[in-house]
Amino acid sequence: MASSASPETPKPKIITGPGGYVLEDVPHLSDYIPDLPVYTNPLQDNPAYSVVKQYFVHVDDTVPQKIVIHKDSPRGVHFRRAGPRQKVYFHSDDVLACIVTCGGLCPGLNTVIREIVCGLYHMYGVKKVLGIDGGYRGFYAKNTVHLDPKVVNDIHKRGGTILGTSRGGHDTAKIVDSIQDRGINQVYIIGGDGTQRGASVIFEEVRRRGLKVSVVGIPKTIDNDVPVIDKSFGFDTAVEEAQRAINAAHVEAESFENGIGLVKLMGRYSGFIAMYATLASRDVDCCLIPESPFYLEGPGGLFEYIERRLKENGHMVLVIAEGAGQELLAESSTQKDASGNKLLQDVGLWVSQRINDHFSKERKMTINLKYIDPTYMIRAIPSNASDNVYCTLLAQSAVHGAMAGYTGYTSGLVNGRQTYIPFYRITEKQNKVVITDRMWARLLSSTNQPSFLHSKDIIEDKVDVLDNGNCNPN
Amino acid sequence: MASSASPETPKPKIITGPGGYVLEDVPHLSDYIPDLPVYTNPLQDNPAYSVVKQYFVHVDDTVPQKIVIHKDSPRGVHFRRAGPRQKVYFHSDDVLACIVTCGGLCPGLNTVIREIVCGLYHMYGVKKVLGIDGGYRGFYAKNTVHLDPKVVNDIHKRGGTILGTSRGGHDTAKIVDSIQDRGINQVYIIGGDGTQRGASVIFEEVRRRGLKVSVVGIPKTIDNDVPVIDKSFGFDTAVEEAQRAINAAHVEAESFENGIGLVKLMGRYSGFIAMYATLASRDVDCCLIPESPFYLEGPGGLFEYIERRLKENGHMVLVIAEGAGQELLAESSTQKDASGNKLLQDVGLWVSQRINDHFSKERKMTINLKYIDPTYMIRAIPSNASDNVYCTLLAQSAVHGAMAGYTGYTSGLVNGRQTYIPFYRITEKQNKVVITDRMWARLLSSTNQPSFLHSKDIIEDKVDVLDNGNCNPN
Amino acid sequence: MASSASPETPKPKIITGPGGYVLEDVPHLSDYIPDLPVYTNPLQDNPAYSVVKQYFVHVDDTVPQKIVIHKDSPRGVHFRRAGPRQKVYFHSDDVLACIVTCGGLCPGLNTVIREIVCGLYHMYGVKKVLGIDGGYRGFYAKNTVHLDPKVVNDIHKRGGTILGTSRGGHDTAKIVDSIQDRGINQVYIIGGDGTQRGASVIFEEVRRRGLKVSVVGIPKTIDNDVPVIDKSFGFDTAVEEAQRAINAAHVEAESFENGIGLVKLMGRYSGFIAMYATLASRDVDCCLIPESPFYLEGPGGLFEYIERRLKENGHMVLVIAEGAGQELLAESSTQKDASGNKLLQDVGLWVSQRINDHFSKERKMTINLKYIDPTYMIRAIPSNASDNVYCTLLAQSAVHGAMAGYTGYTSGLVNGRQTYIPFYRITEKQNKVVITDRMWARLLSSTNQPSFLHSKDIIEDKVDVLDNGNCNPN
Amino acid sequence: MASSASPETPKPKIITGPGGYVLEDVPHLSDYIPDLPVYTNPLQDNPAYSVVKQYFVHVDDTVPQKIVIHKDSPRGVHFRRAGPRQKVYFHSDDVLACIVTCGGLCPGLNTVIREIVCGLYHMYGVKKVLGIDGGYRGFYAKNTVHLDPKVVNDIHKRGGTILGTSRGGHDTAKIVDSIQDRGINQVYIIGGDGTQRGASVIFEEVRRRGLKVSVVGIPKTIDNDVPVIDKSFGFDTAVEEAQRAINAAHVEAESFENGIGLVKLMGRYSGFIAMYATLASRDVDCCLIPESPFYLEGPGGLFEYIERRLKENGHMVLVIAEGAGQELLAESSTQKDASGNKLLQDVGLWVSQRINDHFSKERKMTINLKYIDPTYMIRAIPSNASDNVYCTLLAQSAVHGAMAGYTGYTSGLVNGRQTYIPFYRITEKQNKVVITDRMWARLLSSTNQPSFLHSKDIIEDKVDVLDNGNCNPN
Repeated sequence: MASSASPETPKPKIITGPGGYVLEDVPHLSDYIPDLPVYTNPLQDNPAYSVVKQYFVHVDDTVPQKIVIHKDSPRGVHFRRAGPRQKVYFHSDDVLACIVTCGGLCPGLNTVIREIVCGLYHMYGVKKVLGIDGGYRGFYAKNTVHLDPKVVNDIHKRGGTILGTSRGGHDTAKIVDSIQDRGINQVYIIGGDGTQRGASVIFEEVRRRGLKVSVVGIPKTIDNDVPVIDKSFGFDTAVEEAQRAINAAHVEAESFENGIGLVKLMGRYSGFIAMYATLASRDVDCCLIPESPFYLEGPGGLFEYIERRLKENGHMVLVIAEGAGQELLAESSTQKDASGNKLLQDVGLWVSQRINDHFSKERKMTINLKYIDPTYMIRAIPSNASDNVYCTLLAQSAVHGAMAGYTGYTSGLVNGRQTYIPFYRITEKQNKVVITDRMWARLLSSTNQPSFLHSKDIIEDKVDVLDNGNCNPN
Repeated sequence: MASSASPETPKPKIITGPGGYVLEDVPHLSDYIPDLPVYTNPLQDNPAYSVVKQYFVHVDDTVPQKIVIHKDSPRGVHFRRAGPRQKVYFHSDDVLACIVTCGGLCPGLNTVIREIVCGLYHMYGVKKVLGIDGGYRGFYAKNTVHLDPKVVNDIHKRGGTILGTSRGGHDTAKIVDSIQDRGINQVYIIGGDGTQRGASVIFEEVRRRGLKVSVVGIPKTIDNDVPVIDKSFGFDTAVEEAQRAINAAHVEAESFENGIGLVKLMGRYSGFIAMYATLASRDVDCCLIPESPFYLEGPGGLFEYIERRLKENGHMVLVIAEGAGQELLAESSTQKDASGNKLLQDVGLWVSQRINDHFSKERKMTINLKYIDPTYMIRAIPSNASDNVYCTLLAQSAVHGAMAGYTGYTSGLVNGRQTYIPFYRITEKQNKVVITDRMWARLLSSTNQPSFLHSKDIIEDKVDVLDNGNCNPN
Repeated sequence: MASSASPETPKPKIITGPGGYVLEDVPHLSDYIPDLPVYTNPLQDNPAYSVVKQYFVHVDDTVPQKIVIHKDSPRGVHFRRAGPRQKVYFHSDDVLACIVTCGGLCPGLNTVIREIVCGLYHMYGVKKVLGIDGGYRGFYAKNTVHLDPKVVNDIHKRGGTILGTSRGGHDTAKIVDSIQDRGINQVYIIGGDGTQRGASVIFEEVRRRGLKVSVVGIPKTIDNDVPVIDKSFGFDTAVEEAQRAINAAHVEAESFENGIGLVKLMGRYSGFIAMYATLASRDVDCCLIPESPFYLEGPGGLFEYIERRLKENGHMVLVIAEGAGQELLAESSTQKDASGNKLLQDVGLWVSQRINDHFSKERKMTINLKYIDPTYMIRAIPSNASDNVYCTLLAQSAVHGAMAGYTGYTSGLVNGRQTYIPFYRITEKQNKVVITDRMWARLLSSTNQPSFLHSKDIIEDKVDVLDNGNCNPN
Repeated sequence: MASSASPETPKPKIITGPGGYVLEDVPHLSDYIPDLPVYTNPLQDNPAYSVVKQYFVHVDDTVPQKIVIHKDSPRGVHFRRAGPRQKVYFHSDDVLACIVTCGGLCPGLNTVIREIVCGLYHMYGVKKVLGIDGGYRGFYAKNTVHLDPKVVNDIHKRGGTILGTSRGGHDTAKIVDSIQDRGINQVYIIGGDGTQRGASVIFEEVRRRGLKVSVVGIPKTIDNDVPVIDKSFGFDTAVEEAQRAINAAHVEAESFENGIGLVKLMGRYSGFIAMYATLASRDVDCCLIPESPFYLEGPGGLFEYIERRLKENGHMVLVIAEGAGQELLAESSTQKDASGNKLLQDVGLWVSQRINDHFSKERKMTINLKYIDPTYMIRAIPSNASDNVYCTLLAQSAVHGAMAGYTGYTSGLVNGRQTYIPFYRITEKQNKVVITDRMWARLLSSTNQPSFLHSKDIIEDKVDVLDNGNCNPN
């Protein structure tokens, strides 16, 4: 996939103001297309909105990224507030929008699709919306699907994505060719950080060609690893559903002597689901996440802790994020490389085997380990009520921005407000659990697990650490 | 109940700064008790927290109330950020805390109780926590209950409150006598606006007597009608559970000719649950809330709309908040006062009867109306995972504040950050759905229901209307 | 509605055998139409069935009604076993089937519809199936709906009935005219006892006219009040869903001083749902059903029992079937007839008011009564897995019978075996809880509630009482 | 484990009667202990039962095993009906009962425990009940646990077993020593076929020693593989819970190109859960069970079928019982024996890998296979309402039998009636899906999967095949 740091990448749009105010603005079609006609926002004539005097977002509305402040703090970075504008840059009849979903499943995908379609249709009178089939490659390898409010009416009650999805490579040039050839002028791209990077490259190519096409990202990541935004859609639903697996692990563990319940949860690079599911459950004795390295053997290690908990309590429950302990796994895999045992790449199976081996062979203790991997059962459920509302606002914000001529942005919630965030801020790094933050301390305090840190590891102060926490109502 | 505006009420603590910065600070024990000893926060020695260098909240950290800003906006009102302080005003061994729950049930009550107990115990080593039985009157009319982490271990999986609760009057003097006599020095009061008003009066009396007692409120309102805070705990759970009733109403309505499903949801003065449940469901044709007056008869009225929907669609679903249409009910009740029919005060039953009467008598149409009141089935469930995490942070924030010597405050989430809010801001008004706000416009747009507003009713501009919305990720 | 005991009603088909064997057989088209052609059952060529050598039901297979026997008991009444026959009386291409649903909603209606359609289609190659819209009257007042496996593919995941339903009167002659005019030759009628009586009359008229039309009933009654059969479909689902309401009532009751949770469940004439929901829950202190009269005041009455439980336990949970205490209600209503208070006909509201009045006025006790009516929330859910399988077998049995030329029967489960039961056995009486049976004794034992019986009321021995219990795995 | 066919095994108690009547009776304490005193059943004085005149089971009541009969069929095998007897062989004060749970978890274990305790206590006034900790070995290796109605009050709402359980060997002599030494005289043993075999041996040893100890089995098998009985407790709950996994598999499969959802369900030797879950779901394209051998490659094989479904439909869902295809696995494992890959013994992982390999290597097709193993999430949930009622009746039947002096029996449901079944009938073989039965034909018909049978494999007629089906409301 092409890098977003290609030479032609334009400079970020930065606007500054008094008191250290900085606005990281998003691109606009008029940045590179002169003399675009503007239209009155048709919402003005919408009966549902007619009673709302202050409906339109003020052109200067922005939302600060950092909101824990001192009375003399600099104002810092802001993002443009999302919402309907008085003037739009597309005539409703001229809009041909398309929607594509990429990457793994996440609760709420269908709700976002539904609300883009219904938002375009009911708010702006846009009738032409296409679904791209099966992810990015669908732009050129498949037929499109017609979408209208009737087609999408009940889809929010189903898990998955009605458009289909896929992972893996794609050809940006062919995608933009397809956009151009079909006459598409609004592209809504729902996907994780890789997908948003792809969207960024598509946007660059669209701009290079000078097309009047808004390219809009909607961040989808069940792992909550997209930076800047408060929380990704589907996350609450996933944490809720994970409780079932933890409960089952707890019941199994309690019913057998030296019972160990082990639950693997999603989180390739970020342990948010594992952390929140642990905090919500209160039945977990140890939570292992990618951000917090751990080790198995020796003093302060996992085996020692397990043995202590079994002696104290007779049973224990472990939660492990899928990306935890990859460094241990890599070591281990190298050692066993000859056997080519690919299954060991599942950290849950791997750690199960290591625990079983340790206790049966070294400690001669009989343990009863039950391993539960609820990943697909969590991903595939429909979004819950709060995620449904969240998806609705996200979709509507995306639509308002595209109609207003903004492009090259991701629609996202920042400090509880819908904003437009330039792609480069979304793709430059991943959101991670800050293990020197209070939320992780809360977890450690609730599980009483070892920190697995040697004193030398203790991370140096970071001034802003307490205010970085997306998803953290600190 | 005594007013919080009694003559001896002290002035609010207001601190100002450059750029229009205002801090509405909360009282502190040292405001009225001189020479209090201070102690090092025992969290410093807690292994779970030892890795967190920036664990303690900076003494100057504050959170703005308004965060949609322009580059030259004044900074506006801020609240003190919640969290642990370097210094505490209680020695752990000296603390005798108590917890009381008042008012109706709400998902999450037991989680808050659990986390206050566990927070005091595990974070601060406080071993003496009492439960007050059955609400405020339990201070003087009942025995207390001993609480420790073992007692509360599984209570978050149950609905209701293990302490019991009650509504209605109480005697502030007797409560403060009991606090004083028992040697209680931290009082955690969980309840709605009436309860918080009571807490405010208790605080005033405590201060008048010069007692070293922190009085802390935790706002509980399933209706989400407490102002300033983003959202009350249990709200997400309630909106989720309300979906069951709406689904049932939809199925019943669809299965019968001219089927009407009517669901009454909580919301005495504020229609948030009805509004969010409607937005999350997408099966609702009309949502009636206290903030938006409606009328039954004539053009633009409810009957006309129902008839139109039945003709178009064959069925319809209505959601009504319990406090909606009270002005109509009052009229109607006065007319029928002689019969003393108290049951008609349930707006759901009343509107059911009016609809049935209208169609059977006036329109000679056979309709099939099914009325569902899921109130108690919603209130009584345990909190979901996201509310569990929320309750945990709320409880821990309350504890940190009390240990740090703050008092007379409510612990609350403001723009996603835990803060301490002075009681008077919580009790001065109720949070209501702003029907000239975009969220209500979204609802109108999704249901296509009439606005029930005559043009003369259209509310005048309010400059800040778009940023007032608590609970609104706008 | 015409009586099934009309003069032209043919005699029951009774076949006897050795050892007191009696077969209550069902009518057959060949009873009144001579020289009907027969065909080989197309299942013989169905690949799924080809491995099943003993697939076809033996023509002499019957199932006894009474199966608790002594070694020298007479064999007693039997029913014809349901299932596919070697010979069928319809050629698949000639079949025009129709399905109608009548009466209130019940979990599983859509599954039955689905499986009739799919059974006809996949097992017998029948392609022409019509849905009758909105109950019996749909035969002549509405258009029909085309049904095929694709249309019904997902309907079992939804509550309600996709065909719509209705209650109330209909015109048998017009129905049979419609059947005749449209060329329908298999009629599947899903409904309760009233509906089955209607089906019986339709069958008589069909026979009178000499039509080659199989009229088949499928018993639907959420109350489980259809006699002879073990259990009606949807019953398990309803009892399961009722647990939510009982749990909520229990939580509410426990959280308030003198808390009373009152749940009304379905059961107009039969208290099965209330009884089973009580037995499954274990949180209920008193269960009131139509079959067991009770009284409120005086020694041994409900008020006395409530007061005792509140004193012992601080709270209590009551479950009341909607048809319980109608004789008390009738008295009470007559007394208040002038006020025309129709709402009091809801026994739940009525008994709530009586309890409130008794304790507030007479006993001067403050109680906290919460009344929950989950009726529509129970009726409207989709059937659970075990009901789905049950509905499948019921529908397939119905189809096999019709194809084999049987008519005038209800398909039903007797002692765990699918059978064909003549209409008159289904409609002659209602299935009721036998309060001198062990199942009710179990309930009394689990709740410890008073029997409300005076010694004079004790019912005389009935020899067979222990073997009558449908739905009773005694 | 000792065989039940040991030389000292007494002859079965067979009683015959006219018309081919056979009663397979259960042992009684008086068979080997002369002159036992008898007592009046205390239920006679129980207020809950006093209204039930016919409460006691007639001494001659029996239940036939085969109930699909012809008018001149022989009467066949019967079992003794369970229930309270007029006379009991234990004085309530003398009873010391114990309960043990063995083997894997199953929904309803806690309900059975609860109802044995409450049945003994409330029906018979027995106050001394012990729980054996952690399965059979707990008799001699652990302390016992005191059980009374208060201790067990809420346990039916939790999954697992509060007593703990274990698998594996035990020492019968030590168990009977412990029974004798502790003075236990009623032993309730909850477990699967291995456990029941153990119970049989314990019973033989108890009889050999001439102890007045009733040994009672309660069959527990989530797989439903215990013969004779209609259905094991927890089975309905398991089938219901399995729907979640199937739904998730379906959503995942639908959302990806060539998506395959594979769900492994319980069923080591019997595919009942897989079969019923498939029948209840309707989203499954292929169900593989131990009773129906299958093969992967070549015409009529699984790979061919998968490819066809993917081409027709774009996705497919497979359900596989854990014991399916073990013969293929054995072959495959032998081939790979050197690598010692134990993980491949999970048929789900194994078949996933084979499918992935086949399509990626041989067919060069990209498929998206998602494998879900919900086993522990199913086993660990609490029983649903219908299983709760079932467990209650099973437990009460067990108690009535022991009090009446019966021993060496399993309490079980036969044709919907509670009976006492001699151990040897329960342990002599396993209940299996009869793949020449109609239920399996129904499944084949609903999935359209290949039968995997060559014509030569087609099984010969079995006369009774259609009436053997436990769990089959045929």
